[in-house]
Amino acid sequence: MSRITCPILAQRVTSADEAATHISNGDNVAMSGFTGSGYPKAVPGALAEQIAKAHAAGDEFSIGLLTGASTAHELDGVLAESKGVHLRAPFNTDPDMRAGINSGEVEYVDTHLSHLAQQVWFGFYGNLDVAVVEVAAALPNGLLVPSSSVGNDKTWLDLADKVIIEVNSWHPRAFEGFHDVYYGTKLPPHRNPIQILEPTQRIGDPYLRVDPDKVVAVVETNAPDRDNTFAPVDAKSEAMAGYLIDFLRHEVKAGRMPKNLLPLQSGVGNVANAVLEGLADSEFEHLHSYTEVMQDNLLKLIDIGKMDSVSATAFSLSREVAEKFNANAESYKGKILLRTQEMSNHPEIIRRLGVIAINGMVEADIYGNVNSTHVLGAKMINGIGGSGDFARNAFLNFFVSPSTAKDGAISSIVPMASHVDHTEHDVHVVITEKGIADLRGAAPRRRAKRIIDNCAHPDYRERLHDYLDRAWAASEGARHTPHLLDEALSWHRSLRDTGRM
Amino acid sequence: MSRITCPILAQRVTSADEAATHISNGDNVAMSGFTGSGYPKAVPGALAEQIAKAHAAGDEFSIGLLTGASTAHELDGVLAESKGVHLRAPFNTDPDMRAGINSGEVEYVDTHLSHLAQQVWFGFYGNLDVAVVEVAAALPNGLLVPSSSVGNDKTWLDLADKVIIEVNSWHPRAFEGFHDVYYGTKLPPHRNPIQILEPTQRIGDPYLRVDPDKVVAVVETNAPDRDNTFAPVDAKSEAMAGYLIDFLRHEVKAGRMPKNLLPLQSGVGNVANAVLEGLADSEFEHLHSYTEVMQDNLLKLIDIGKMDSVSATAFSLSREVAEKFNANAESYKGKILLRTQEMSNHPEIIRRLGVIAINGMVEADIYGNVNSTHVLGAKMINGIGGSGDFARNAFLNFFVSPSTAKDGAISSIVPMASHVDHTEHDVHVVITEKGIADLRGAAPRRRAKRIIDNCAHPDYRERLHDYLDRAWAASEGARHTPHLLDEALSWHRSLRDTGRM
Repeated sequence: MSRITCPILAQRVTSADEAATHISNGDNVAMSGFTGSGYPKAVPGALAEQIAKAHAAGDEFSIGLLTGASTAHELDGVLAESKGVHLRAPFNTDPDMRAGINSGEVEYVDTHLSHLAQQVWFGFYGNLDVAVVEVAAALPNGLLVPSSSVGNDKTWLDLADKVIIEVNSWHPRAFEGFHDVYYGTKLPPHRNPIQILEPTQRIGDPYLRVDPDKVVAVVETNAPDRDNTFAPVDAKSEAMAGYLIDFLRHEVKAGRMPKNLLPLQSGVGNVANAVLEGLADSEFEHLHSYTEVMQDNLLKLIDIGKMDSVSATAFSLSREVAEKFNANAESYKGKILLRTQEMSNHPEIIRRLGVIAINGMVEADIYGNVNSTHVLGAKMINGIGGSGDFARNAFLNFFVSPSTAKDGAISSIVPMASHVDHTEHDVHVVITEKGIADLRGAAPRRRAKRIIDNCAHPDYRERLHDYLDRAWAASEGARHTPHLLDEALSWHRSLRDTGRM
Repeated sequence: MSRITCPILAQRVTSADEAATHISNGDNVAMSGFTGSGYPKAVPGALAEQIAKAHAAGDEFSIGLLTGASTAHELDGVLAESKGVHLRAPFNTDPDMRAGINSGEVEYVDTHLSHLAQQVWFGFYGNLDVAVVEVAAALPNGLLVPSSSVGNDKTWLDLADKVIIEVNSWHPRAFEGFHDVYYGTKLPPHRNPIQILEPTQRIGDPYLRVDPDKVVAVVETNAPDRDNTFAPVDAKSEAMAGYLIDFLRHEVKAGRMPKNLLPLQSGVGNVANAVLEGLADSEFEHLHSYTEVMQDNLLKLIDIGKMDSVSATAFSLSREVAEKFNANAESYKGKILLRTQEMSNHPEIIRRLGVIAINGMVEADIYGNVNSTHVLGAKMINGIGGSGDFARNAFLNFFVSPSTAKDGAISSIVPMASHVDHTEHDVHVVITEKGIADLRGAAPRRRAKRIIDNCAHPDYRERLHDYLDRAWAASEGARHTPHLLDEALSWHRSLRDTGRM
């Protein structure tokens, strides 16, 4: 049976090539997609070809590209290859797009994921010309069943002058009922409290709305999301997960947290994966998650009965688990809810629920400033994503990284962070495979000792202590956060010049 | 008539010296006080003497000291002089306490003002032994009328094992009815939405509650708050205020803001003062303020009918204006509301109301990272205060500073900030007396050009452009945020070594 049962939208069905002609040079184009899920699969490629043709003919053609978060080669990759993107926001993991960002060709605005939709609505990004949004089905009344991510789709459909819809039949038709699209947002001063009191409480509709008069094209696809398979959990990740879960045990024992913890958020990656595996083997039960991304191991926690419910804005599954989920989607209904990223990452809700936030990092300095985004202060990796949304408003936050990288050549604990995404005012707990540093209620120098002694790799500990001691000695009258300005970034300089810190 | 009409509390009236004996070596002591208002006037001095005596006798005596924010010499000053404080949070402007922090004697935890109360409640700071709270009156039923600040008083009275109350009859008895103390806060996962939809909407009680069994002493005082007189507005402040108000006009014209703006927050200082004076002379009407501090010029805006209402957590008035207010307090009732600082600075409410946040800074770097707290990355000035609470969740935020300090020897626009309190992800608009840089929706290098061309002092512009150009040239493949690691902090090193940047 067709996924497009809306008679008006059915009349707009066309090819991806035809659809892409509605996008013009200079347009601001907002697409669906979040952590490799729910992105349009066909129109970006057709658009890239169109751009390449224009360039071959000597014509200018580039767009501003907004999404929910990261997408996949079929979107970011092909558009980066076409050299047709002059502006990109708010998060990217595609290697070709990253190369464009770091070559200076693509201007990248690295925005908190909870902020982009409202800032576009506020008018901070100019007019939104076209939205390209993937859905799982279009109903007879014109309502749209979202696919594997909600992201900023609601805002894109609301604000864009023209809308292109991709209906992807790879997604289970049973997705209907998995989403909660909140239509109660308003511009200030007309905003109301967001009445979410529990992670998977519904406050919105299961459907996306679109003004059919704006829909210029509908494209049918049948294509899988990106395969988000992770390497098996390694020993370091397992060690870090172990410290984290022990720390949670300790907090429960101290009466600072209920027995079933508080809602968990975890970034994407090996450590998050290990934490979730660790929780599967732990005594914790009736867990909840209020997070961005529904990962393999969260599904596993639901399957084994350890986790009661998950609120997220997107799936990000391995192909294998995705196919299993798609075949059995109905059985997860009511346990998994996908919201707009404005809501999944909303400071109001994160603070209210008391979320436990677990995120990776590039480096932390001895005083607890965390760099999540830049290599050597200059080169963008992926972006801040939702880590700021969650960490800043969390009940308790963790920043996690192996103590070294590149076979020990790089220390993830440095004298001064080369870029700061999470300030010393905000970071609660730092974890490496060497141990855990609890920074809560501690002044900078006390934090420094804990981070160096507990988290730094032993090969770097002495040099870090030496830096701290000499900074103290040289900083009479300025000993709140002692630093040696000549050496603060010397580890990064050394890495640049010699390949080692 | 006595201000202490509660029979139980009346029995506990004693001297400050006697009251101070309830505080012991090693105690965590939480005191009232916010921006020089509502701090206890007598017990801290008596405690300082007690500490000095203990030290003279060779005994150890020091406390952990928590407040709302800054206090005055009678609290921070005398306790700093006594060398009796080992830990201080969350904000301080006292020169003697600052000296102790920068000498390394006092461990200072520079916490967001909206976070401290909940983190103490969460148990992150250990047990709270004694609270010392100033009020304006104690009613027959034991309820307390707060004085000129609310700050964290509710939490201190709730959590402390022992309570000392100072009743200060300098405050107008008519303060009754000016406060809104919200008793609906809970620990997660039991928190509810905070139902504030307008700046001065009441959601709580006009009184502080205290368990009378915990009250070990009541001390009567009649002493004024700190005199918060500012220098008259100078030409630079006037210029910055002009840019800011013009920018607001521009935003209204562009349809991004209502005609009466959105609720204003302004930090304390000359520029904030100038902005408020500028608004007094502007066409804007029916303004509202959702802020921390009720300053002279906010009262003036109310007096001339430009501002309808102000929500804050504390007064911070010049002596002259304070005395005028005290004599006419009744006439301001309903227009001014003092809340707990958890609520005045709450991210949930700030984001909902769409606050316009105006805060000073020490320096901004070319990419829009802002340092609000540290000189040369090491020496603490005052603390982050509420600037992060407001800026991070604001509809629109401004960071404001003269382009130079020390007769031009210091540029407030630098290649790399020596400390980051507000990250590039969060800063919207930078203003100096030279101009205004709108960073919204702009990638790092575009921000850099705007900041250098519009905000840097002309004497430093060429060198900043030169830095940016050379960083770009040297950063092939790392041009998202180009930096020269050898020179990024060289301006600060030069200032340290030569007294000039």
